[in-house]
Amino acid sequence: MEQTRRTPRTTVRRMAKRAAYDREAIHSILDRAMVCHAGFVADHAPTVLPTLHARIGDRLYLHGSAANHMLRTAAAGAEICVTVTMIDGLVLARSAFHHSVNYRCAVIFGRAKRVDDPVRKLAAMRALVEHIVPGRWAATRAPNQKEIAATLILELPIDEASAKIRTGGPIDDEADHALPHWAGVIPLRLVALAPAPDARLDRSIPLPAHVCDYRTPDERG
Amino acid sequence: MEQTRRTPRTTVRRMAKRAAYDREAIHSILDRAMVCHAGFVADHAPTVLPTLHARIGDRLYLHGSAANHMLRTAAAGAEICVTVTMIDGLVLARSAFHHSVNYRCAVIFGRAKRVDDPVRKLAAMRALVEHIVPGRWAATRAPNQKEIAATLILELPIDEASAKIRTGGPIDDEADHALPHWAGVIPLRLVALAPAPDARLDRSIPLPAHVCDYRTPDERG
Repeated sequence: MEQTRRTPRTTVRRMAKRAAYDREAIHSILDRAMVCHAGFVADHAPTVLPTLHARIGDRLYLHGSAANHMLRTAAAGAEICVTVTMIDGLVLARSAFHHSVNYRCAVIFGRAKRVDDPVRKLAAMRALVEHIVPGRWAATRAPNQKEIAATLILELPIDEASAKIRTGGPIDDEADHALPHWAGVIPLRLVALAPAPDARLDRSIPLPAHVCDYRTPDERG
Repeated sequence: MEQTRRTPRTTVRRMAKRAAYDREAIHSILDRAMVCHAGFVADHAPTVLPTLHARIGDRLYLHGSAANHMLRTAAAGAEICVTVTMIDGLVLARSAFHHSVNYRCAVIFGRAKRVDDPVRKLAAMRALVEHIVPGRWAATRAPNQKEIAATLILELPIDEASAKIRTGGPIDDEADHALPHWAGVIPLRLVALAPAPDARLDRSIPLPAHVCDYRTPDERG
């Protein structure tokens, strides 16, 4: 398996056996998460904001308004950290102390570059829409020149990156197994509910398959 | 409504009409989120890691191992930023450009303090377990002195904080309403699936109500 670049800060320090450094694991987490949290430093202090992301090959794309403060800071060459996390289950142990959660988390460090080429920008915009709702791009009006210009796209290499994954049941102290407390896992999943048409939707327009059959990346499994 | 402290960095710059600065809105988002993302600065670069949180009054508690790098950095007085985000729905517009998501996000800036008093530490540990699974604390073995000592608890005032919320349908350009594309919202929800007992569970122990009736904070609504 191809590995990412191992540096002191991507080396998982706590519970190292839960770490993964192969691209396949990291890409899978990025592809299944609906949102990422991007961190940047402003006036020596950290700021963490949620944003949408999409992966094309070994690059991650973030986007937002050309007026977005975080993206402008990142586009100017500042170091950023992009983290995605999914909570897969609640791990209920016999002791309060050993309670935990099952999760998948990927962390990428690096400097992003602004994408200016309109063809590559459009490809990233397409990937961002398709990441959230596969099949959607072809069922929309494509961005025009003005909209492409108003969108800031950042490209971050998935290079200095790592993943951390917890799976399985509770790990109780041996002596605690005699306690009368229920122990196990409550699985969690992000699911899609029934779609709600726009108030102004022309009711002669049928519900397309990419909407009525929609499953979140997590449901698709 | 009581407001949080408004500073330049808590003032939402983009889409300011989606901002909220009242404690009620911010507390509600913190209480319904299962996980937060904490940012800190190490060697001038940002790091963003997921962790669990709980609120008691106007303070947020984070916890982890006493060996946790992020928590130790924060406990030493470094500025941190804690962000929680829930994605409530996918907003499908007629144009690719106006695609969006409905979300609730809260951001807190500040310096955390390490909680050393064992009574307050235990109260925070209780809040952390009860935040995830209400009713669970009483159905477990409480932490002993050694476990309390091995846990690092940080307290962050919910003071320099803001929220940002998007709700509602797509906002298309007027001309695009004539297009034949379906538009609307696909709601998303984090749901609990059937609990799975630990492999070593004594099968005479019944499934408790706090597990079999479990609903995520989002499902409880």
